[in-house]
Amino acid sequence: MSEISLHGGDPSVLRRLNSAATLRALRGGGEPTLSELARKVGLSRPTTEGVVTDLAERGLVTEVAPRSGAGLGRPARRYRFRAEAGYALGLDIDAHWVRLFLADLNGRVVGSHRADLDVGWQAPERLAAVRAAVKTCLAESGIERSALWAVAAGTPGVVAPDGTVAFCTVVPDWQGLNLGRELGRSFSCPVYVENDANLAAMAERWRGVAEDADDMIYVLAGLHTGVGVIIGGRLHRGRRGAAGEIGMLPELGLRDTTAALAGAPLPAPGTVTGGAEAVLEAARHDDPEAVALVERLATRMARGVAAMALAVDPETIVVGGALTRAGGRLVDELRRRVRPLCLSPVRIESSALGDEAVGVGAVRLALDRIDENLFRIDQG
Amino acid sequence: MSEISLHGGDPSVLRRLNSAATLRALRGGGEPTLSELARKVGLSRPTTEGVVTDLAERGLVTEVAPRSGAGLGRPARRYRFRAEAGYALGLDIDAHWVRLFLADLNGRVVGSHRADLDVGWQAPERLAAVRAAVKTCLAESGIERSALWAVAAGTPGVVAPDGTVAFCTVVPDWQGLNLGRELGRSFSCPVYVENDANLAAMAERWRGVAEDADDMIYVLAGLHTGVGVIIGGRLHRGRRGAAGEIGMLPELGLRDTTAALAGAPLPAPGTVTGGAEAVLEAARHDDPEAVALVERLATRMARGVAAMALAVDPETIVVGGALTRAGGRLVDELRRRVRPLCLSPVRIESSALGDEAVGVGAVRLALDRIDENLFRIDQG
Repeated sequence: MSEISLHGGDPSVLRRLNSAATLRALRGGGEPTLSELARKVGLSRPTTEGVVTDLAERGLVTEVAPRSGAGLGRPARRYRFRAEAGYALGLDIDAHWVRLFLADLNGRVVGSHRADLDVGWQAPERLAAVRAAVKTCLAESGIERSALWAVAAGTPGVVAPDGTVAFCTVVPDWQGLNLGRELGRSFSCPVYVENDANLAAMAERWRGVAEDADDMIYVLAGLHTGVGVIIGGRLHRGRRGAAGEIGMLPELGLRDTTAALAGAPLPAPGTVTGGAEAVLEAARHDDPEAVALVERLATRMARGVAAMALAVDPETIVVGGALTRAGGRLVDELRRRVRPLCLSPVRIESSALGDEAVGVGAVRLALDRIDENLFRIDQG
Repeated sequence: MSEISLHGGDPSVLRRLNSAATLRALRGGGEPTLSELARKVGLSRPTTEGVVTDLAERGLVTEVAPRSGAGLGRPARRYRFRAEAGYALGLDIDAHWVRLFLADLNGRVVGSHRADLDVGWQAPERLAAVRAAVKTCLAESGIERSALWAVAAGTPGVVAPDGTVAFCTVVPDWQGLNLGRELGRSFSCPVYVENDANLAAMAERWRGVAEDADDMIYVLAGLHTGVGVIIGGRLHRGRRGAAGEIGMLPELGLRDTTAALAGAPLPAPGTVTGGAEAVLEAARHDDPEAVALVERLATRMARGVAAMALAVDPETIVVGGALTRAGGRLVDELRRRVRPLCLSPVRIESSALGDEAVGVGAVRLALDRIDENLFRIDQG
């Protein structure tokens, strides 16, 4: 009884299954021979050869120089995955800056760029500056635009599935903009748009302090606030892409952090000037007034963070964003204030990726979409 | 290239794959012949016959009386899934009652029972009463204890993975009890323990107002409060089984509902007496004092419900428990108060299962565990 049914037994489905398994084995690294690859995947050598030929034609696999054999005869041919077959571009578009990261199919970063944006700009000027930054980043990295297989962009606000910024108070002239469509004009590959805190959560799970966490929360504590939620290893967006927007409740203290830092009068105007960034810098240097401000912010944020912790009961809460630049003080204060509000001690960590989290998360999202297509077996 | 690898090609894995596919097809209903079944599953007729013989030996499948054929010769034998091969028992253990539901493998309820528990009892008396209720339920249904394949129990509080009630203020002498082990003494099948609101969420998704919802929240508004969270179609328990315990934050209004109803002085002692249940009954009859109390409760609960809605962004919020007996008033008031706090209009519905939600959810959990074993293919 060694029969197996594959709903119709479509041979092209089997071919794609074999192709995906072979690609996965090659992507794991190394430069196997056909025989080694066949053994690893569990296919016959002739089948493996057919699959590899097909993958090479698609540009995903290439032959490497054979190693000089110890024995007699011609050394066996070896193959490797072509991570340089395509690239993923990740953008972090904020009110104040755009950050870009360019990575190959293995996630190796091959280029990055950052440009300041004027917070007073309307959408067209901001989009033009983003496009210019993309051009510079590609040129500096020596990567052709046509080599991009996917682009993802992070933005503050609630993002609808079609790439529209459905709700955003942080970036002027941004709410209602179909950012996916606007950016899509510059690329021939798919463009995805996601909330910035969501992407930062993905980044910290990929390469940060929450590596491989099943359930985690990322709190973006910057000039605006946001929350990203990973559940069961996957980004939880919610019905309208608005999961984590708990800062909407004024008593949970996340909503008006921005106002307190960016707009409201500072505690000692004579001592600390230059806005939020200056406060943060001062707090790092133990200026007592600024330290007091960070402590007050922590007190206010603690309830929102605790509410998220109680709602989701995560393994880890990662706190990132500009406010964490204050030398870990904000995170220390949050730890002290959140724990008494929770049922059990919750792990609260500083972001490992700092200001790069959103851009790195955008790369991860773009790579995820590329992988879904590479390993899709239900379509031709 | 019609080769497929099953990591080692273990024939027993293939046998189990075929067995699971056949069982699934039979459980879908109907009384197919071997040929019909073979066609449906995509196996050969001899393979199907072998699988069906094996399933019949395990008591999961039985031959039914052949239909008189229209043509000549002996009519073909027909088979059906034996839903009566085993049973699932669901318990809802509260401070005030235990409710039981007994269902066959298709989820058809074949028996139920309810017994009052004295809120003053210590754990041993309460457990004895639960055991007596189980005995009565089995006897009344005519089901042997040995026919139970899984038991699940819902309880207020945070439940640890090993079945210990890790946190519970509602049921006296309950916190710290390993309820799973205590109940397990009465059964030879596995016993599972889960938070009551979590089970109610599963029940409403199974047979209630949130049928097949991917992301939903159940708010248990009774003499105690609780929240169950379904994400991606699965119960989200959190790292310590404490997801949804947002009522721990006093300003979110869920924590002291119990106290307000059960312990605090009622608004008009002359008008409304007899504790919380009487208030609810009065509210249903539009007693103005009681109506005012329900409205105050709704105002307090609204922030907690909104916090969960903002954290998870669900398709539906289902509100159940004793407080919803007040003629839908509590749900109406919650709708009115929660929506302005949220980013987008959220769907808030009254529980369809009422007081039965926790017990029905316990049956669903037990059936899920049975199914996992029935369709497991990675073990013998």
